[in-house]
Amino acid sequence: MKALEEKIRKEGKILPGNVLKVSSFLNQQIDVPFMMEMGREIAGRYAEEGVTKILTVESSGIAVAMAAAVPLGVPVVFAKKTDKNHRTGRVLCAEVASYTHGGKHFVEVDAAYLSPADRVLVVDDFLACGNAMVGLIDLIKQAGAHFVGAAVAIEKRYQGGGDKLRAEGMRIEALASIASVDPEAGIAFC
Amino acid sequence: MKALEEKIRKEGKILPGNVLKVSSFLNQQIDVPFMMEMGREIAGRYAEEGVTKILTVESSGIAVAMAAAVPLGVPVVFAKKTDKNHRTGRVLCAEVASYTHGGKHFVEVDAAYLSPADRVLVVDDFLACGNAMVGLIDLIKQAGAHFVGAAVAIEKRYQGGGDKLRAEGMRIEALASIASVDPEAGIAFC
Repeated sequence: MKALEEKIRKEGKILPGNVLKVSSFLNQQIDVPFMMEMGREIAGRYAEEGVTKILTVESSGIAVAMAAAVPLGVPVVFAKKTDKNHRTGRVLCAEVASYTHGGKHFVEVDAAYLSPADRVLVVDDFLACGNAMVGLIDLIKQAGAHFVGAAVAIEKRYQGGGDKLRAEGMRIEALASIASVDPEAGIAFC
Repeated sequence: MKALEEKIRKEGKILPGNVLKVSSFLNQQIDVPFMMEMGREIAGRYAEEGVTKILTVESSGIAVAMAAAVPLGVPVVFAKKTDKNHRTGRVLCAEVASYTHGGKHFVEVDAAYLSPADRVLVVDDFLACGNAMVGLIDLIKQAGAHFVGAAVAIEKRYQGGGDKLRAEGMRIEALASIASVDPEAGIAFC
């Protein structure tokens, strides 16, 4: 999505450790009309898939998920992050290895909101190592629902998470794919 | 908003401690078309106020804020919850006394996203004691921005937070106002 690449070039900031900060429009502050445009792009890519529900994770995934859910006309379910494994019959819970914090945490969702009849699209703001995505897909499997595919605003392709999932046959869409981030050379897209 | 009252009656669950659970459509799972309807209602109530930005707090405020921001055509900024006071020149931070957890926490936002030129509408899913709302209004004051008013999906009027703010001259709108919650008598609206 060219408009997103331009926005990242214009507003994205490269922080120490080659971290890309896009909190002026994607998380923390949300450029709502632009977010809705991204949502329409995601909805268009999955229009033929019979999606019944979008699954995301708090907090920064919620706005992108909402934006995609409006044109698809489906509910959003957001998983909550927690330090403890709360898995019971009524709560689905999956472990997420944390790249940035070194440790691990869990994502959980009320079992009532994902059913075997659901065709679930996973939506998030970022895809890097893919640990959060793997956790969300695990929740879908636990529910016996069908994982249709995933869509993220920005994939840091150089961190490999998306390609690992694609190699397993999963459909992973990214509106912008970043090949490299460097304070001097800037941002290169795939 | 009659449709919201009906939805609460139909889908809301009263948990021990007279806690009202509406996670089937408002938080955790989001009924997106209905959420957009609530957003239009909020936008209509503040249509003449020249709102330039919506401020909310993660996580469950984000979806309502997005829904109101679409018709108003303004950005959403969401404050983050944290255990520490990170206030610096670049981060605005306000204390929030916690009713449910007994302790306190902080809400913070990058100072770049609220400016003296902003006319800010605060949007959240719930208003009870008003502690979170007071913290968000504090952030707006710290930024030197203008607090236009607030809109919440559900006000638990019996907890008094909204009326305390109204008594100070603030405009606080609720799409549904609950007078009492009781496992036997059910939910009574104001």
